[in-house]
Amino acid sequence: MGLKGRDLISIRDLSREDIEEVLRASRRMLPLAVGGKVNRGLAGWVLTLAFFEPSTRTRLSFETAMLRLGGACVTIADPASSSTKKGESLHDTTRILSGYGDAIVLRHPNEGAARLAAMASDKPVINAGDGAGQHPSQTLIDLATMHEAFGTLTGLKVVLLGDLKFGRTAHSLAHALGVFGAELVLSSPPSLALPEEVREHLDQVGAKVSDADQLHQAIRDADVLYVTRIQRERFGDDREYQKVAGSYRIDNAVLAGAKDRLIVMHPLPRMGEIAPEVDGSPHAAYFRQAALGVPVRMALLSLMLTGKAG
Amino acid sequence: MGLKGRDLISIRDLSREDIEEVLRASRRMLPLAVGGKVNRGLAGWVLTLAFFEPSTRTRLSFETAMLRLGGACVTIADPASSSTKKGESLHDTTRILSGYGDAIVLRHPNEGAARLAAMASDKPVINAGDGAGQHPSQTLIDLATMHEAFGTLTGLKVVLLGDLKFGRTAHSLAHALGVFGAELVLSSPPSLALPEEVREHLDQVGAKVSDADQLHQAIRDADVLYVTRIQRERFGDDREYQKVAGSYRIDNAVLAGAKDRLIVMHPLPRMGEIAPEVDGSPHAAYFRQAALGVPVRMALLSLMLTGKAG
Amino acid sequence: MGLKGRDLISIRDLSREDIEEVLRASRRMLPLAVGGKVNRGLAGWVLTLAFFEPSTRTRLSFETAMLRLGGACVTIADPASSSTKKGESLHDTTRILSGYGDAIVLRHPNEGAARLAAMASDKPVINAGDGAGQHPSQTLIDLATMHEAFGTLTGLKVVLLGDLKFGRTAHSLAHALGVFGAELVLSSPPSLALPEEVREHLDQVGAKVSDADQLHQAIRDADVLYVTRIQRERFGDDREYQKVAGSYRIDNAVLAGAKDRLIVMHPLPRMGEIAPEVDGSPHAAYFRQAALGVPVRMALLSLMLTGKAG
Repeated sequence: MGLKGRDLISIRDLSREDIEEVLRASRRMLPLAVGGKVNRGLAGWVLTLAFFEPSTRTRLSFETAMLRLGGACVTIADPASSSTKKGESLHDTTRILSGYGDAIVLRHPNEGAARLAAMASDKPVINAGDGAGQHPSQTLIDLATMHEAFGTLTGLKVVLLGDLKFGRTAHSLAHALGVFGAELVLSSPPSLALPEEVREHLDQVGAKVSDADQLHQAIRDADVLYVTRIQRERFGDDREYQKVAGSYRIDNAVLAGAKDRLIVMHPLPRMGEIAPEVDGSPHAAYFRQAALGVPVRMALLSLMLTGKAG
Repeated sequence: MGLKGRDLISIRDLSREDIEEVLRASRRMLPLAVGGKVNRGLAGWVLTLAFFEPSTRTRLSFETAMLRLGGACVTIADPASSSTKKGESLHDTTRILSGYGDAIVLRHPNEGAARLAAMASDKPVINAGDGAGQHPSQTLIDLATMHEAFGTLTGLKVVLLGDLKFGRTAHSLAHALGVFGAELVLSSPPSLALPEEVREHLDQVGAKVSDADQLHQAIRDADVLYVTRIQRERFGDDREYQKVAGSYRIDNAVLAGAKDRLIVMHPLPRMGEIAPEVDGSPHAAYFRQAALGVPVRMALLSLMLTGKAG
Repeated sequence: MGLKGRDLISIRDLSREDIEEVLRASRRMLPLAVGGKVNRGLAGWVLTLAFFEPSTRTRLSFETAMLRLGGACVTIADPASSSTKKGESLHDTTRILSGYGDAIVLRHPNEGAARLAAMASDKPVINAGDGAGQHPSQTLIDLATMHEAFGTLTGLKVVLLGDLKFGRTAHSLAHALGVFGAELVLSSPPSLALPEEVREHLDQVGAKVSDADQLHQAIRDADVLYVTRIQRERFGDDREYQKVAGSYRIDNAVLAGAKDRLIVMHPLPRMGEIAPEVDGSPHAAYFRQAALGVPVRMALLSLMLTGKAG
């Protein structure tokens, strides 16, 4: 059915075919995501970025994507400069914004906000993070990074490391990888284990899921080591946070036993989870992952607005 | 004489002919204010938006207007990120900004700021709100909304409801409607009645003005019900505010006796003045009114910068 | 060797030939820096403005420059809306940003930040101010203003007045003028004199430097009077600040004995250093200086991104 005119609130809104279309289109966008390349694929289209919670990298990579295709952006970068201060409902704000530009990228602190906004808007809404909820374009970037490295997602062995309880990116990624037949190996502090209902959902989509006994062993067999950030704000007690955060830190020694082809990913920003020395290693894929935000979002915006990509 | 190169500080700066030109141009802009329509009418022009007080909807609809015509924008969205913090005068700031882009849209907390800025600038200045002062492009949008609905302004019966004392939009709109020969019916809490000098001015321009005895009766005869927001910050005492604010609230029951063709308008954001159930009614015109901000501002910018519109 | 692909961190990164190339290109940009002039020289290029400290005029004039050449901008205007709040290092932030757009204009409160960012970025970085450090594009604008007025820099007699200790613009300008064979006359309160190491550096580049005995006498002989702002924040004691700040104030009486061709410059914002009455004098060049920010930055961006300018 294609993505044209649809909302993108959760990665589960997309079929395997939808995702494959985005991945194909992202590859076609790669040569267009460079300086001096003039492309007019989205000329005449205006994207509204409504960030009621700041998120610099997400905002800038959406904007860059739109601009690289000849489109234009209007932006609320900061909740403080918005009418929500005057007490306006998200419904009214979204409905009004949908009368201006041609699609809305929404970032909001409250879970469920994107779904609510999509109901108010008569233009497509892309969820760019709503509280502990979804952030589906991040998942598409994660998949594109693996696909670029390995040419496929099926059969990849992916270690998910870190906060698997609260980390929304981990849940969405696990779902998508499950759909594509990747093998998931979970490694988290006990207090941050994958919630039971997410695990049940993964079983339902037929995902192969196992728990890592030992991180070293899991890394030895893995194609992808996906590290997530442990959020300080999830812990009442700072000592508890320090204990958990210190329990895993990826450096070159940890990676010594890995396969040559292993890639290390991270949605960034990182705190101490990955040592800077890893940046120079051939395993490091997290900055490439960040850079792929532009071509993947070029593909997504192009498909959602025009039904075509390149 | 046309609008090219002129400032727009108050709606009174515009003659009836000027306003008619904007309304005609706005209608021509309607088919251009949609996604994927490439227009280069303002290619090569740069608009500076200097918002020393946040106003998301005004800023974004001006920006969208400029971008839809192939123009470009540079924006101060937030007073906190501006040099005024360093103690620079508005005169100096405006004079410097007028050396960059080709026109300035100014929003400022202080009444009279726009007139002062226009004196400092050698490029056109558009007042997008200065304290309790003017906001003329809002009035043009209000007129365009009525004109779209009825094909004329002359002879329309318009009920102005709410804060007619402090509400700057109401004063500007009353003036413009008076000039076009509409009939004004005023309905406000006694403490928020139209100031005597505004009333005298309306007499001078030959406006037909009366007071609503009963809101129900006034609505029954009206073509337009224009609701304004009662601003909490105008009341020292919150109980006083609650009493006044609660004294009028438009819902479907209130609108039951209205003519079929009645439209309900509101400059938004609304608080409790219009019940959400009205959104689904054929009377609701306030979201359409907001959306018309883009084509009306396209017309205005085009006429002010190039002297032409489409 | 040309500027293409190089960083611009300090004015000392540029040879005399580099600066002459920017000045020539700036003159070619002048007729393109006007409304309605369509230029596509930077079409397809995206500039990232990362302002971790607000600076409205610098940001807006870079943005205007980019847009006037058909380029596009993505902007962090305000540190509050950035990921640095989450504790990310400048290295990581810059590295990620360099994966999006094609060059980075960085403003940062910490001295040395721009050099650090340039090491992290694989795209050109322009330093738009880092603490008490450099701001080289301001110096290029200063030179362009003098060059426009006199057709040359060699042999000009330039009085530098004000804070010559902390003012970064004064140090960079003194270096560049020295390289071009201008004659420098220094006038500052004793507590704000030019640091000894800057003076030694000026000797090394062969600059002619002297101290003004009397400001009146220095102005009488000068071609350029360059006034800098005395920053209140440099003084612990407000009375000390008031005493020093009051010790020089340029008004028409002070300028009465000057040569006809003297120009008064100031990097702005000014506080009380130049009386408003001077604005109307033929000596006043500070608003022209501000306006030249756009064509000079058009030249700089064009040369750095494409190696060509017009």
